[in-house]
Amino acid sequence: MAPKFFVFEGCEAVGKTTQLKRIEAALREKGFPVIVTREPGGTVVGEKIRSVVLDPVHADTIQPLASLLLFNAARHQWMHEVVKPALAAGKTVLSDRSFLTTMVYQSYIEGIDADFVHALCMKAVDGVLPDKIFLLDISDDELQRRLLGSREEKTTRYDIKGEAFHRKAREGYLAQVARFPGLIERIDGEGPVETITDNMLGRIVSMLS
Amino acid sequence: MAPKFFVFEGCEAVGKTTQLKRIEAALREKGFPVIVTREPGGTVVGEKIRSVVLDPVHADTIQPLASLLLFNAARHQWMHEVVKPALAAGKTVLSDRSFLTTMVYQSYIEGIDADFVHALCMKAVDGVLPDKIFLLDISDDELQRRLLGSREEKTTRYDIKGEAFHRKAREGYLAQVARFPGLIERIDGEGPVETITDNMLGRIVSMLS
Repeated sequence: MAPKFFVFEGCEAVGKTTQLKRIEAALREKGFPVIVTREPGGTVVGEKIRSVVLDPVHADTIQPLASLLLFNAARHQWMHEVVKPALAAGKTVLSDRSFLTTMVYQSYIEGIDADFVHALCMKAVDGVLPDKIFLLDISDDELQRRLLGSREEKTTRYDIKGEAFHRKAREGYLAQVARFPGLIERIDGEGPVETITDNMLGRIVSMLS
Repeated sequence: MAPKFFVFEGCEAVGKTTQLKRIEAALREKGFPVIVTREPGGTVVGEKIRSVVLDPVHADTIQPLASLLLFNAARHQWMHEVVKPALAAGKTVLSDRSFLTTMVYQSYIEGIDADFVHALCMKAVDGVLPDKIFLLDISDDELQRRLLGSREEKTTRYDIKGEAFHRKAREGYLAQVARFPGLIERIDGEGPVETITDNMLGRIVSMLS
């Protein structure tokens, strides 16, 4: 039974982190060795980069290309120090976000050429793609409702963006499905939390067995 | 009289910074508007990146590709915030180092494909090349002598490298002359400091007039 690499993606407030924690707990209960990680970050160098690239203080000065390079520098360290060693040790990797967010933020939203961003991201991950990216998706209305109601602390320069940004991000995530055939599975994020977990857990366990 | 963009390159201890300061003073005396800058750095984001990428504490963990992306992220901010505005304001730019060091360190020494590094550097600078790169060069023996005698504080993870690294770097700088035809001028860095300044100042003033 080979370990696998799963990513949870989607807009702010779609429930990525909640689902990731529930799935981690369920997999551990079933006896699967698993690690949880997040992008960007998870390494000493990566966390320092994260603190530069996401700091709201740079929101008006940091250039799209600089963001792209910083996210991919952190990503490369993360692939090298976290993901590859975990897979090599037989552990399944669950990650909160991936290069897909870079495709959406730096290309779809900030306008850098998609093929260039795609190629750079593939270089940063040494060609190691997830076995599956679960794209949690909720309607624009539900997204707006959750963003308004969110009590989470807003700490990054993306958290403080307005509704138009998050709506465009949703559009951008959905547009990636066709670019990466077979890689991304859209998951309806509006049902009961348990139903969503069971849905993804079923796929994950069958891929791990 | 259009402003120009000059870069001073070469190994540690060849006298780049000394010459740059002397030429800055001479140009100011002659009434040329000039700014002095350095790579990586010179911007808020860039200085933060610099402190991550050059910190000796990461010497064993930071990957070549991560270094490449970090240097180019800082470079892009620097081009956008420092070089382009200065040139647009009619000021001549003198820079301590440039993308040439990245070609040498991340490609020639650390082994990343030269065409990829070259293309990424050109993207980072938005295609804005210096009017001239002065490559200060001293013999291997002289380089060794100066490195041993240097009383400068060693603060970056490159400063603390051994002689073999610096010898290879010299080889790498000389190898770039053919890759960038007409851009790089090798300057003999072993003569009296005044002769070296006069040599470069002559070229610079004629290009500015």
